[in-house]
Amino acid sequence: MELLKQKIFSEGKVLSDTVLKVDTFLNHQIDPELMQHIGAEFAARYADASITKILTLESSGIAPSMMTGLRLGVPAVFARKRKSLTLVDHLYSAEVHSYTKKETNEISISKDFITTEDVVLVIDDFLANGQAALGLINLVEQAGASLAGVGIVIEKGFQSGGNLIRERDIRVDSLAIIQSLTDGKITFQEEDSSI
Amino acid sequence: MELLKQKIFSEGKVLSDTVLKVDTFLNHQIDPELMQHIGAEFAARYADASITKILTLESSGIAPSMMTGLRLGVPAVFARKRKSLTLVDHLYSAEVHSYTKKETNEISISKDFITTEDVVLVIDDFLANGQAALGLINLVEQAGASLAGVGIVIEKGFQSGGNLIRERDIRVDSLAIIQSLTDGKITFQEEDSSI
Repeated sequence: MELLKQKIFSEGKVLSDTVLKVDTFLNHQIDPELMQHIGAEFAARYADASITKILTLESSGIAPSMMTGLRLGVPAVFARKRKSLTLVDHLYSAEVHSYTKKETNEISISKDFITTEDVVLVIDDFLANGQAALGLINLVEQAGASLAGVGIVIEKGFQSGGNLIRERDIRVDSLAIIQSLTDGKITFQEEDSSI
Repeated sequence: MELLKQKIFSEGKVLSDTVLKVDTFLNHQIDPELMQHIGAEFAARYADASITKILTLESSGIAPSMMTGLRLGVPAVFARKRKSLTLVDHLYSAEVHSYTKKETNEISISKDFITTEDVVLVIDDFLANGQAALGLINLVEQAGASLAGVGIVIEKGFQSGGNLIRERDIRVDSLAIIQSLTDGKITFQEEDSSI
């Protein structure tokens, strides 16, 4: 997605060979107009997939998910990272380890919102080691729902998450795939929406 | 806002005299179309306020904030509840106690995204004891920005947060104000957009 790549080029900050900071438009400050384009792009790619729910993880996945849900006319559900007092049982849960934050969270969704009837599109802001996406896929499986695919805003192609998911024959659509961040330079690889 | 009140009536679950669960459309599953209407409503109310930034708190504030930002043509910034490894200093921070979750979080934003030039509209999903909104207002003050007002999706009028903010002569726009949840029954009071 050209518009997104331009935004990453102009505003992304390479902090190391593995860390790209995009907090001017995606995961701290949000560019609503860009999110609208991202939502339209995911919706177009999954237009024929009969999606009934978007599933994401708080917090940075919410903006692109809501815009995709708006375009497809379906609700977006965000998994929470901790249990809150008003949401204690009746849950599907999975453990997700974050290499960035060096911690393991339990993510969970209410059983009310993903059911065997649902066709789910999982969306997240980043795909790196794949732990968050795999956790979300796990929730979809526990619910007995169909998984249409995984939509990712930015994939770090040099990390293992993309392969981990694609080798399970799950469709992955990444709107920008970063091949390398070496020497402070952002290099993209061609998008790949095949399984 | 009539559409919102109808949604609260039809889908809100009264768990006790003080707890209203609205996780089918606001804070777990999100109804994107309703969020679009909410964004349009906040944008209309602040159309003449020269807003340059929306400020909210992860996670449930993100959806209405992004929709308001989209309509006003400005970015939405969400404060984070914990420090992440890619966002360690260069922050404005405030402590926020959650009575629901019985915990105190530090909320913070990067100094890059709210400056003395900004006119900020603070948005949040709920206003109850006002701690989250006061924390966000504190961040705006630390940044030396102008505060245009506070937009709230659902205010619990029987709790003290609304008064705490209004008595500081800060404009509060609540799209639905709940007067009472007694005996499992939801009663609204008239909206009040005055300071």
